Amino acid sequence: MSWLVTGGAGYIGAHVVRALVDGGEQVVVYDDLSTGSTDRVPEGVPLVVGSVLDGALLEGAMRDHAVTGVVHIAAKKQVGESMERPLHYYRENVTGLQTLLEAMTSTGVGRLVFSSSAAVYGMPDVDLVTEDTPCLPMNPYGETKLIGEWLINAAARAHGIRAASLRYFNVAGAAGPELSDSGASNLIPMVFERLEAGDAPRVFGADYATPDGTCVRDYIHVQDIASAHLAAARRLTDAPEGAALTLNIGRGEGSSVREMVDRILKVTGRQDVAPQVTDRRPGDPARVVASADRAREELGWSARHSLDDMIESAWQGWCHRH
Amino acid sequence: MSWLVTGGAGYIGAHVVRALVDGGEQVVVYDDLSTGSTDRVPEGVPLVVGSVLDGALLEGAMRDHAVTGVVHIAAKKQVGESMERPLHYYRENVTGLQTLLEAMTSTGVGRLVFSSSAAVYGMPDVDLVTEDTPCLPMNPYGETKLIGEWLINAAARAHGIRAASLRYFNVAGAAGPELSDSGASNLIPMVFERLEAGDAPRVFGADYATPDGTCVRDYIHVQDIASAHLAAARRLTDAPEGAALTLNIGRGEGSSVREMVDRILKVTGRQDVAPQVTDRRPGDPARVVASADRAREELGWSARHSLDDMIESAWQGWCHRH
Repeated sequence: MSWLVTGGAGYIGAHVVRALVDGGEQVVVYDDLSTGSTDRVPEGVPLVVGSVLDGALLEGAMRDHAVTGVVHIAAKKQVGESMERPLHYYRENVTGLQTLLEAMTSTGVGRLVFSSSAAVYGMPDVDLVTEDTPCLPMNPYGETKLIGEWLINAAARAHGIRAASLRYFNVAGAAGPELSDSGASNLIPMVFERLEAGDAPRVFGADYATPDGTCVRDYIHVQDIASAHLAAARRLTDAPEGAALTLNIGRGEGSSVREMVDRILKVTGRQDVAPQVTDRRPGDPARVVASADRAREELGWSARHSLDDMIESAWQGWCHRH
Repeated sequence: MSWLVTGGAGYIGAHVVRALVDGGEQVVVYDDLSTGSTDRVPEGVPLVVGSVLDGALLEGAMRDHAVTGVVHIAAKKQVGESMERPLHYYRENVTGLQTLLEAMTSTGVGRLVFSSSAAVYGMPDVDLVTEDTPCLPMNPYGETKLIGEWLINAAARAHGIRAASLRYFNVAGAAGPELSDSGASNLIPMVFERLEAGDAPRVFGADYATPDGTCVRDYIHVQDIASAHLAAARRLTDAPEGAALTLNIGRGEGSSVREMVDRILKVTGRQDVAPQVTDRRPGDPARVVASADRAREELGWSARHSLDDMIESAWQGWCHRH
């Protein structure tokens, strides 16, 4: 198999590329470098610089590199920005995927692993979210991810594409300092940024119906996310035509924001700092924790890395860059 | 106000154009004529021939005709075809709408009436479907309509667009023979087609949990659909920025397929024919009937035409063309 990894120069993409290469797969990176960086592309892996909206370039890359499958990670992924710029998010995430699927059908590329998100569930009112929990996304980002799944499932039925949509829960950590998340829209880098600026880390709401009153999430190491992609890619290699999997990719364990902040302060040696509790952010569900059963059954995959692995590796990356 | 009506040369669009013109509104038709026809455009109403995927042409039409609002009816609308050609449906219905919204924001056009569909509900398990019934569409056509609503609601919040998404129930009838539905994917023209071919009309399943075992739908005259657009257009004229309405457009009364077929046989004078009951079609919900309360409250609109009005006017149109 030869896999085209869109967004392969980004934070998650770079980890997926390494997992595929280490697993013996052929890889080509396709990235517009809007947030990705060439530093993250390993030596020997070809890089095609372009947009997922450029169908001709996608087709050319598929033909030139004899691509047999696509791992589609390229996307806009900030919830807040998606509310301010919904047309941009729909264009990049929905029309981008549609352009990719058109390029796949016209070049005969029949396998696709897609980056979906727990954001498709919206505000789930269950202890563990299964893949059959109703999807009622709450913002344009989550909508574009659910739309992506619909589009892929319809293309699987109509055109025989074999596909796996992986619903990531809260991704954190890094395989090495140079691969860490450079943005600050996730909890761990947001706390680092506050600490660096001399500010107390914030906890948005401590009055949720959870054990300590703060939101509960399922944090998962980006290396576990990457190994799930390798497992999905291998699973699709032998899957029947039209097979379409939808899988939660989480640890199946909840951690509260307060617990995470306490762990981050411990790892960074800043136990002198007291977190600051502020108002809730609109749209934050109280608890979103995966049932990880289906991914284990379908892929033989489960997460291996601990919360401290995530925090320590993220901190090494932060120190490396600052 | 000056309204650009996309799909204005089609079956529903032509009725909406007449209702707007009769209501004293300025109208420009925008249609790619893939299924629409120039015969349906009234004299004196300008026609721009083009695709909703052509952003530059849309912007030009908006500027040239000093457009202040859009009624977006252009879309692919066959459920079965949407399952065979999902990428085509997503391109036309989703990317088309997104291109239109981009053209509206760049030209400052701030009002939009959108053709949505009861297909957004999927298989609703309620007696009367309200606008708060969960949307779980069952096919790419229904998905593209729900996606359209999401995109519009997000654009209303982000860009201040005033919008009304009208969820049509089962549209039938015509304002005159030359305006009738030329397709045969809806019940009434399907029955006409079977009769003309010398075949018995089919009833897909008589073992549903409904009074006579056949599916129950909410049929509405296309002239009532058209008057709902005029009411929505007027309502948006004075609405505050960012107002986004979602409204069922139905009669609020259910009719079974068997009842409709019997009425059609009576109107066409073919009571000698016995309908043929066949297997269920996959994906047909047992009962889909609107609650029409919100449209009455928000628009002061309700349907006026009877089932026999729909059948008789459709039959006149059929005889006119055959």
